[in-house]
Amino acid sequence: MAAMRNSPVRFAVVGIDHRHVYDLVEGLLAAGAQGVGYCDQGSDPRVAQGLASRFPELKAFSRAQDLLTHPEVDVIVCAAIPADRAEIAITAMRHGKDVLVDKPGVTTAEQLAQVTQTVAQTGRIFSVCFTERFLVPAVQHALELVQGGAIGEPLHTLGIGPHRLNAAIRPDWFFQEDRAGAILVDIASHQIDQFLVFTGSPTAEIAHSHVGQYHPKRAGADFNDFGEIILQTERHRGYVRVDWFTPDGLPVWGDGRFFVTGTDGTLEIRKYLDIEGRPGGNHLFLADRQGTRHIDCSAMPLTFFARFVADVQARTQTAMSQAHAFEVCALALQAQALAHPRSRPA
Amino acid sequence: MAAMRNSPVRFAVVGIDHRHVYDLVEGLLAAGAQGVGYCDQGSDPRVAQGLASRFPELKAFSRAQDLLTHPEVDVIVCAAIPADRAEIAITAMRHGKDVLVDKPGVTTAEQLAQVTQTVAQTGRIFSVCFTERFLVPAVQHALELVQGGAIGEPLHTLGIGPHRLNAAIRPDWFFQEDRAGAILVDIASHQIDQFLVFTGSPTAEIAHSHVGQYHPKRAGADFNDFGEIILQTERHRGYVRVDWFTPDGLPVWGDGRFFVTGTDGTLEIRKYLDIEGRPGGNHLFLADRQGTRHIDCSAMPLTFFARFVADVQARTQTAMSQAHAFEVCALALQAQALAHPRSRPA
Repeated sequence: MAAMRNSPVRFAVVGIDHRHVYDLVEGLLAAGAQGVGYCDQGSDPRVAQGLASRFPELKAFSRAQDLLTHPEVDVIVCAAIPADRAEIAITAMRHGKDVLVDKPGVTTAEQLAQVTQTVAQTGRIFSVCFTERFLVPAVQHALELVQGGAIGEPLHTLGIGPHRLNAAIRPDWFFQEDRAGAILVDIASHQIDQFLVFTGSPTAEIAHSHVGQYHPKRAGADFNDFGEIILQTERHRGYVRVDWFTPDGLPVWGDGRFFVTGTDGTLEIRKYLDIEGRPGGNHLFLADRQGTRHIDCSAMPLTFFARFVADVQARTQTAMSQAHAFEVCALALQAQALAHPRSRPA
Repeated sequence: MAAMRNSPVRFAVVGIDHRHVYDLVEGLLAAGAQGVGYCDQGSDPRVAQGLASRFPELKAFSRAQDLLTHPEVDVIVCAAIPADRAEIAITAMRHGKDVLVDKPGVTTAEQLAQVTQTVAQTGRIFSVCFTERFLVPAVQHALELVQGGAIGEPLHTLGIGPHRLNAAIRPDWFFQEDRAGAILVDIASHQIDQFLVFTGSPTAEIAHSHVGQYHPKRAGADFNDFGEIILQTERHRGYVRVDWFTPDGLPVWGDGRFFVTGTDGTLEIRKYLDIEGRPGGNHLFLADRQGTRHIDCSAMPLTFFARFVADVQARTQTAMSQAHAFEVCALALQAQALAHPRSRPA
């Protein structure tokens, strides 16, 4: 691939085990990329059907290898079972492709080391789509505001990421930590990403982490339904709580919130709903020296996919720096490794 | 004092250094107690003036001793400088008075041991008014809902207690930890109280605690403006964040929130305002198996003071158990002692 070119970026999908693949494909198409096809072999045949009906222009392939080595493919999109993503990504990069994976990008420290090495050797892009930022205009806009000084110097972030379990429709691998990635590796990675970017920190320490199964009678004995992390730098702290306790009656999959405290102001994001309040999601609430404001961010355009496509063409890192993507993965793995699991007593 | 009696409970005020004294007096009067008087010696003469103008029926005394030994006084109300409260309370109890103190009730473990011993020896009541529960109808109602099973089994609480610093009008002692009580002892005690009662836990462990000065250029070098605690039991966890970072433009002193996650539902309390939402405070938001609800609790009557007055008469513990009051104090002191202070780098 040339250092700069104008022809469209072409992508193919290898790994369709998680429905997040729809978001990745939709975002790339909207950003002007062209879909070459997808490998229709996945753990859940309904996802292949979903891809076919949503994106009829995408051609189905039965062999992943045909896409990983396809001469017209620039980018491999991957939402495979999390434990399998690194290997697909490494193969793709060794064949000259850039990679856009669903989170978590990796599930072990060994995978992270191998991916990091492959990026260094090949010069390819390994991007992880942190959907709770890149697909949420309110988060994107809040970051712009904070970076513009709207709340002074940011000091503390607090992210809550409750998720609906939907146990009945989850595949078996979802409940296997070695395949899905443990709770902090998987759903807490969003919150780590947000702590780092909102506080402007290249890295952080894990001051505390914990996982546990808190529901007394649900799912398998090994399924941790709760996790928390405290991140720190010399100037900032961040609390992260993730769980699988979204109530059945909530109209969205989770009441995700993100709070930032700064020297001169605070902000709150209600990502997916404003419970019993305004319709829709993407609500931003700001308090500063002058007063308070509500900002409806729902119509603000997302920039991630357009930037990623431009990065593929120009070999830049405007969507997200490569170092940041790796740092989020490393911190999530570290938090999980340091967590003291606590199973509920009988 | 007889074991049960019908004559009104009479109180006197010794210690008027914090404006919380207005709330305590107002609550007791509304509950039918009679005010004998107050000692007008305090660190801030404006508080004595405030008492005189708000409660003209209260007689001013210049000597605390005259009230602590007054034969007609049943209850001593105390909002002295925090470090002085225990001694006043002990003297009062030794003279046969019950005690209602503003939080924090004590500032050291030694004080707590002495107060505990005095309660055991005298049979008097040592009550700490945790205003962020007892003066907030939404918290009181939420607790009733949770205890009634509205969200299933409670698993996690998350309390945020930002406060406005108002540095210009704070007395000197406010910035002296040994006089005011450190940040976790003082303003985090509310959140510890709420964790214990909402999870129905008689006690808890401190899994993590931290304090620090995060504002780069404010107040004295020793003033910790941020504190956090993680509480745990075998079945529950709770995160507490307190800080002095309420933005100037917020129309109330702090956007206090309290979230509870249960097996079958979640709730959120917006204690003092619903930022850019409904008017007033005391907003409760509930999500359960059926759907979501907003409950305006602002007109719900508070029960604490009536129960406290009844406890004084009937020698019961309906407003709050004595063991709970001591446990909150003990955990706050323990959290502070275990905290790793981190001053901001220059």
